[in-house]
Amino acid sequence: MNYIDALKQRYSVKKFNKEIPVSRENLSPILEAGKLAASSLGLQPYRILVVESSEIKEKLIPAFGNPSQISTCSHLIVLISRKNIEAHYLDGYFKHITEVRKTPPEILAGFRNSIDHHLVNLQKKELESWAEKQTYIVLGNLMFAAALEKVDSCPMEGFDAELMAEILDIDSEKEKVCVTLALGYRADDDFFKTLEKVRKPDEKLFKFL
Amino acid sequence: MNYIDALKQRYSVKKFNKEIPVSRENLSPILEAGKLAASSLGLQPYRILVVESSEIKEKLIPAFGNPSQISTCSHLIVLISRKNIEAHYLDGYFKHITEVRKTPPEILAGFRNSIDHHLVNLQKKELESWAEKQTYIVLGNLMFAAALEKVDSCPMEGFDAELMAEILDIDSEKEKVCVTLALGYRADDDFFKTLEKVRKPDEKLFKFL
Repeated sequence: MNYIDALKQRYSVKKFNKEIPVSRENLSPILEAGKLAASSLGLQPYRILVVESSEIKEKLIPAFGNPSQISTCSHLIVLISRKNIEAHYLDGYFKHITEVRKTPPEILAGFRNSIDHHLVNLQKKELESWAEKQTYIVLGNLMFAAALEKVDSCPMEGFDAELMAEILDIDSEKEKVCVTLALGYRADDDFFKTLEKVRKPDEKLFKFL
Repeated sequence: MNYIDALKQRYSVKKFNKEIPVSRENLSPILEAGKLAASSLGLQPYRILVVESSEIKEKLIPAFGNPSQISTCSHLIVLISRKNIEAHYLDGYFKHITEVRKTPPEILAGFRNSIDHHLVNLQKKELESWAEKQTYIVLGNLMFAAALEKVDSCPMEGFDAELMAEILDIDSEKEKVCVTLALGYRADDDFFKTLEKVRKPDEKLFKFL
């Protein structure tokens, strides 16, 4: 199946088939695609939680207005974005670049300066929003890869982020629960399964210049 | 080539080979993948500009701190996000759903109410940020599809958005230049071509629960 067909068959599943878990074999490359997502300045200002435990999924149900996906999915991926980029975080990043690429630190000094300069000019809310946007690229990659693996998914953002943070033990000073993605296989009786995909017509979406 | 290998070969190209344009045959499915991106509530609060004209790319150079990508790429994709979701925009969306899915309007009334309720509770800045996040899913899909088409890309967000808006004739009351993606083929002498990809080690990125 080519990737356009895979994306056309993707839709936001409302009810998964509880009986069929996503295998580790299918899950691993999906997560790898998330890992390989591009991020601004390479900073990856996020973490990826993979909730497999039925007990924890159960605990998370009250955080969702509609419990249908969370109570039927195989895995819930929770994307956590950073609220700050501390000097300590950057130090770790540059140490890692130096290890992987063997770049002498003096060559990297200019890049470090430009990052410091860029981040220092962002207000707290702007930095939070910037980190969330990078996290949505990961979300995009996860959904795309899931479609290629014939794994169904449903992105969800309308949850109680504070309750989620509490249950998942997130330090709300440093991080926030940004967005979630349920993975599994569509239930036979998912009402949305047969609906036509709705997208803006090309003439409203695209403009060639 | 499997998709993980394609994503591994992707990197943010700093200098493209000016002599090799991206063909319409390769470009079309990349754009289609952008069109098929998921968005919150299906609202697609964005437009996709595809700049092919050398003249317009030339005009845009001053908007970029580093002119290298914009002056060598084959196409510049400019993603425009909405600043507002007006009742008129929602009317059009619901009319379109009704046409595509033949859903009776009375069935859609509940969905419309929930969207109205959701959006009305967002502050102006929150709505802008929400629309931008959806736009980054499109960005993710475009980069992913480009990698599968063996087309190189470079996402860029550090541009002069006001200057871009002026040149591209964007109504800044309603829309903003959210993020850009240069497409083309890596130049033989692009310094970044041979560098190892740097990603957080799995134990820092993933947590299984």
